[in-house]
Amino acid sequence: MNATTERVTAAVLIIGDEILSGRTQDTNLNAIAKFLGTHGVDLAEARVVADVHEEIVDALNALRARYDYVLTTGGIGPTHDDITADAVAAAFSVPLSEHPEIIAMMQARWQGVELTPARRRMARVPEGGELVKNPVGGPPGFTIGNVFVMAGVPQVMRGMLEDVGWRLKGGAVVLSRTVRVEGFGEGVIAEPLEQVARAHPAMALGSYPFFTPEGYGANLVLRGRDAGEIEAAIQELVEALTAAGITGAIIDPEPKAAVANSA
Amino acid sequence: MNATTERVTAAVLIIGDEILSGRTQDTNLNAIAKFLGTHGVDLAEARVVADVHEEIVDALNALRARYDYVLTTGGIGPTHDDITADAVAAAFSVPLSEHPEIIAMMQARWQGVELTPARRRMARVPEGGELVKNPVGGPPGFTIGNVFVMAGVPQVMRGMLEDVGWRLKGGAVVLSRTVRVEGFGEGVIAEPLEQVARAHPAMALGSYPFFTPEGYGANLVLRGRDAGEIEAAIQELVEALTAAGITGAIIDPEPKAAVANSA
Repeated sequence: MNATTERVTAAVLIIGDEILSGRTQDTNLNAIAKFLGTHGVDLAEARVVADVHEEIVDALNALRARYDYVLTTGGIGPTHDDITADAVAAAFSVPLSEHPEIIAMMQARWQGVELTPARRRMARVPEGGELVKNPVGGPPGFTIGNVFVMAGVPQVMRGMLEDVGWRLKGGAVVLSRTVRVEGFGEGVIAEPLEQVARAHPAMALGSYPFFTPEGYGANLVLRGRDAGEIEAAIQELVEALTAAGITGAIIDPEPKAAVANSA
Repeated sequence: MNATTERVTAAVLIIGDEILSGRTQDTNLNAIAKFLGTHGVDLAEARVVADVHEEIVDALNALRARYDYVLTTGGIGPTHDDITADAVAAAFSVPLSEHPEIIAMMQARWQGVELTPARRRMARVPEGGELVKNPVGGPPGFTIGNVFVMAGVPQVMRGMLEDVGWRLKGGAVVLSRTVRVEGFGEGVIAEPLEQVARAHPAMALGSYPFFTPEGYGANLVLRGRDAGEIEAAIQELVEALTAAGITGAIIDPEPKAAVANSA
């Protein structure tokens, strides 16, 4: 990972009817978002599309042209509705063929079991693609161009991410600090927060209100790539809050990677 | 809700840096997907975009042109990063102005509390928009054209959905049945499943493998709008599985709306 200051971007493409029907609650997006954060890659957009060839091709082409990386999940199993490899090959206008390494893996793993056409489907990789290891067992994913194609089952997807990370040329890691305000609502916090946000256009300042039986308030999250600027912005924010009569702001102790901040 | 056989489609647009940074696990998409299913509306696509004006405008214009409905979540609070109303007004090329009904609600609710510019931000509705009730408390959402704009906080969003449902002209409700196969993997299930899927192009057949300490197998989900066709497809599937040596398939007892099927 290079510690540059450039912004490196990614998109996630989630492929699967089961997410859009509500049958399955997606958790892959959140896992990938956190993973990319630790590698200095900004997740800039995500899309969920159905198991429909043209939808996958169109979304993939739109996203891979626009962002540095695209990570897809889902649709690489053996059944007829697993059409991600076909769609990726079509998007890149390359043929799809059985990868000898995957066939060899399957033969070694499933000794004596017939390699049905369905099982062989999982060995298909677009020409020019490289394998993404599946440490959990079962066939690997693959990468072609700036696209990484992973399984949809969360434990398999997370395993595959481990073989994606080292291939990413990351930008500066985004750091995150939180200032917690209790007993005041966003209606009065908004103005001092906006004042600081305007002074720091390179940073992202967000407000996340909370309401609990014990009280209410907001977590004000400051994200940026420059630890010194974040520190300065925190001081300015506390001053601006105090000037607006909002006292008792609690600053979280030290800068950390955005991903670690799951408050 | 009309019981037609036409397909009625929707997209969800999730607006918020906190989802893309991994700070927050989205649950709104799943809740909306299930809700739309009960109203006979197919969720066809979803996108997650950052709190960036052009991103929201572009995504909204792409989605509202393509689908019957678009439901957005997030970005309607009082802080500077809450820019959804501005973006929706820009997408529709209409002015954004304070809605007198919301100002009146705020004055009634917050007696004696100053209506700061931040609070007044939440009263802004694009010209021609109608309010979407917020039964949980706080300012309402709104609807304009085929777009419904809702809060991002899940309990507020779910409350607002109740005032969205009656406005949807639904298609035929999608029914779902599940055939459970135990002790066989997708590698052998795929061919009989595909055979039935080919014979029923109007239906969607999906395979969802499971691996538990007690055993493995797959849930084969048949979705469609015609209960009779689903019933016929189930019989054909059981026959095709049996012919392939896959016995003991368990058919779930009766047709039900897809949303109820969360197995």
